[in-house]
Amino acid sequence: MAGLFITFEGGEGAGKSTQIRLLHQTLTAQGRKVVLTREPGGSAGAEALRELILFSEAPLSLRAQALAHMAARADHLDHVILPALARGEIVLCDRFHDSTFVYQGYGLARGEVATLEFINALRGLIDCEPDLTLLLTVPPEIGAARIAARGGKPDRYEAEKAEFHHRIAQGFADLARTAPARIRPVDATQSPEDVAAAILAIVSPSLPR
Amino acid sequence: MAGLFITFEGGEGAGKSTQIRLLHQTLTAQGRKVVLTREPGGSAGAEALRELILFSEAPLSLRAQALAHMAARADHLDHVILPALARGEIVLCDRFHDSTFVYQGYGLARGEVATLEFINALRGLIDCEPDLTLLLTVPPEIGAARIAARGGKPDRYEAEKAEFHHRIAQGFADLARTAPARIRPVDATQSPEDVAAAILAIVSPSLPR
Repeated sequence: MAGLFITFEGGEGAGKSTQIRLLHQTLTAQGRKVVLTREPGGSAGAEALRELILFSEAPLSLRAQALAHMAARADHLDHVILPALARGEIVLCDRFHDSTFVYQGYGLARGEVATLEFINALRGLIDCEPDLTLLLTVPPEIGAARIAARGGKPDRYEAEKAEFHHRIAQGFADLARTAPARIRPVDATQSPEDVAAAILAIVSPSLPR
Repeated sequence: MAGLFITFEGGEGAGKSTQIRLLHQTLTAQGRKVVLTREPGGSAGAEALRELILFSEAPLSLRAQALAHMAARADHLDHVILPALARGEIVLCDRFHDSTFVYQGYGLARGEVATLEFINALRGLIDCEPDLTLLLTVPPEIGAARIAARGGKPDRYEAEKAEFHHRIAQGFADLARTAPARIRPVDATQSPEDVAAAILAIVSPSLPR
């Protein structure tokens, strides 16, 4: 891939949306071509799947959910991410494979090995990994308090109980240990400005001249 | 699996819907518990995915379509088919894995090896094969004439050109050669009564006493 593919990961209330927007502003101001996108969704077909996955009244079975996430991801890759990378652009994506692994595998399936292996097998078939992943870490209690302060209708995951969010935090921590070169943790309890500076320090060496 | 899982496959206008209904009537009249279902769809979540796959204004990329079909299938299996089989019932399903392989792989992807392998890898992960598959065969020209005589608005596949339907027929024929014990071709140019008799002759030895 000619471009640079960076994903943002983390639990609820970690500040991903704010930070990805700030990085997008900074890189764009440097005159770079940057695509800002998110999952699930990011392409027309994937957004339709996102609605179905997150808000359907008939919840899909666990492995059907994993497959639907991968269907949305494949469409997003084929229609948005891969073409942008082929043009040499930078792609910033809010959530990607790691979220599926952690939310479905550690969250919903409670770390069941068969589910983790199923998700990893699908991930292998999709065959596209980010160059760099920024993992915004925040204790689940702080993340939950930020979500509550934000107001509005919580989605399926935001509405989950504290124990669920602890499993998510554990999942991301376990995952980060398996891919230390790609996944770079960032302490997201700092001020937004300090988090942004930490992120820029990690990203800068990878940027094309 | 305690029950018996039978799928019906074939191109457009082969008479699958008629024949699966006739077999359902016959087996039910024998006092058996029989579930009649179809794909894509068959469960609430899968029906929602069916709408998205067949009628969405933003068509999914080819591999996203294959993944969405598998997501619908997994939900259908987990919520309808596997529970029925676990209760010892007979499940009759109009289209299943073979249709995905043939329509996406031979039809849309024109037999491209990477797509066929992608679909087969997903099929392996889903890990559920029918006990018996009735493949209703009819020359594509006859199938097309039946569809035309039926009237009404053709769906996306029925509206495809003759060359597409020849690839579908070729795909089913190739597939049948790879699994002769499971896939049993039935000459569907015969009268509906003769086709039904041929199907019953194939199914009967597999029925529980």
